[in-house]
This record gives sequence, structure tokens and C-alpha cells, in this order.
Amino acid sequence: MENNSATLVTATVFTPQAVLNHWQGHRSLTRRVIEAFPEKDLFSYTTGGMRTFAQMAMEIIDLTGPGIQGIVTDKWENADELPHATGNGMPQTKAELLALWDEITDVLNSFWAEILPERFAETVLAFGQYENPVYKTILYFIDNEIHHRAQGYVYLRELGITPPPFWDRP
Amino acid sequence: MENNSATLVTATVFTPQAVLNHWQGHRSLTRRVIEAFPEKDLFSYTTGGMRTFAQMAMEIIDLTGPGIQGIVTDKWENADELPHATGNGMPQTKAELLALWDEITDVLNSFWAEILPERFAETVLAFGQYENPVYKTILYFIDNEIHHRAQGYVYLRELGITPPPFWDRP
Repeated sequence: MENNSATLVTATVFTPQAVLNHWQGHRSLTRRVIEAFPEKDLFSYTTGGMRTFAQMAMEIIDLTGPGIQGIVTDKWENADELPHATGNGMPQTKAELLALWDEITDVLNSFWAEILPERFAETVLAFGQYENPVYKTILYFIDNEIHHRAQGYVYLRELGITPPPFWDRP
Repeated sequence: MENNSATLVTATVFTPQAVLNHWQGHRSLTRRVIEAFPEKDLFSYTTGGMRTFAQMAMEIIDLTGPGIQGIVTDKWENADELPHATGNGMPQTKAELLALWDEITDVLNSFWAEILPERFAETVLAFGQYENPVYKTILYFIDNEIHHRAQGYVYLRELGITPPPFWDRP
């Protein structure tokens, strides 16, 4: 009886809807970090042998859009053939990058609505390489975004620009 | 009927235990990032007007230890009086920092076991300042750790040191 009640309460907390809101909240902050970069630095500034923030943002786009489509359809593109890896289809301006970002926001919302609850526990081979339950795959995508966005924070600080506050998320 | 089944399946996925494992997995990686710093750089290297990685690690310790205790007991220390803010009680060596880290790993496990399921949905005023449901407060603590650890990755890269792989988490 107590176990049953625990199960139901848990279900009202870390729900799929809460996870989507959490993810889109992070995406909204990452969008503001892209916007904070001067156009030139977005595509050219690097440090420590790392990638530009535009390249990192493209990786986030590739994991989010093709990622959520793979989770729903089980059709995965190969990680090495995605735009952030090949450079093909890479946006050339901040406006193009932001337009693609917004497109992926809608893709994420509509594919998320297609995920059946039992899907979260099923194992997938994401991008033909990474074997995990769906829920862990999703947490990985979100964590990867936080990770690279934080590196963008350092780039902005080094450029003398104050990043948007980390805690300011819907 | 379908709703009921959805609820039960959901509950087996984003469970409190899965969230704890996820958090401790991140903590294990952050510990390896601390270890990767040369002792001197851990306490002195900075860029862009930011803090040292030792100070960021201390913030993570302060949110995790006093944070989980606050969630369970509803007794909160003031954010401004925590060691990362005042500098009092700040470890002076890498070995001291790692020992404190390991202590907090145990604190997190034992207090987590005390959280009642209904607690995750209740609103708390974390550290007397941040009003949120418990589940959002916990996600904030985890995200904040990923965020600052990623800044440590940039520091390591700038120091010519290869950080431990981001994906290598239990």
C-alpha cells in the first residue's frame, strides 16, 4: 500500500512533461547565450584547442533534433554524418543558426508528444553508437547542452561579455 | 486505464533512485576533474575574471551537502554564510578538498534515503532565497555542477591537460 502510494506521488514529479519543460528551459537559455556572442566571435573565437561556440551549438542541435526523431522512430543517422561533424549544412550566420535553433524547438515539442510512456525504459542504440535506455539518452542530451553552453560562458567572459544568468530559466 | 498504465511505467523510469544515481554519476566525474588539476592551478588558475576551480568545487559541495540536508530537514543555512561565499572552512589542499568531496558523497546517500516521495513536489525556500518545488531544486543543484565542471574543462584545456571524458559516468 505504501509502495503504491509512493509510486503515484513519484509519477507526479519527474514526469515526462516536467523533463520536456526542463529541457526547453535550458534550450531557451542556450539561445540567449548564442545571441550574446558577437557574430564574428560566434564563428571564430576559441581557446585551449577547443571548438567555436557555433560548432558546439550545432552539436546541440544535432543531438536534439535528429536525437528526438531517433528516439521516436528508431531511425538513427550516424553520428559522424551529422552537420556538426561534417560541417555540411552548418549555418553561416548567427541569424541562420538561431532560425535553425527555433525550428528544432518545434521539432522537439512535436516528437516529444509522440513518445509512449513505456518507451522511456526501452534501450536504444543512439546514433548507431550509444546504447542506453531512452531516459538516460535524453538526460545525456540535456547534460551535454549544459556542458557545452557553460564552455560558451567562459568564451563570453574571456571576450569581456557578461553571459545571461544561469538560473534564469522558465 | 491507459492513463493508469502510463503512470506506472513513468514511475519506473525517472524514479528518485535513478535521479540519485544520475547525480552521483556526475559527482564521480567532477571528482576526477578535481584530481586532473595540478595542485597549484586548482587554487590559483582563473580566466575572464572567473573563480578558481577549487572555489567552484566548494560551491558544488555547499549546494550538495547543506542542500540535501535542507531538503530533508527544512533547516537552511543562508547562502551568503556558506564556505564558498565566505572562504571560511575552505580546504587548503587538493587532498582536503577530495576528502570533503567524499564525505559529502556519503551525506547525499544517507539524506536521500530519508526523502519521502511526496516531498519532491513540495515547495521549499532553498538557502532562504530560492523558492521552487524540491524536484526542481535538485535538478538545479545537478545542473549547476555540470555547468561549473564544464568551466573546469576549459581551464584544464587552457592548461594543456586533457580532461576525463564527459560521457564516462556510471
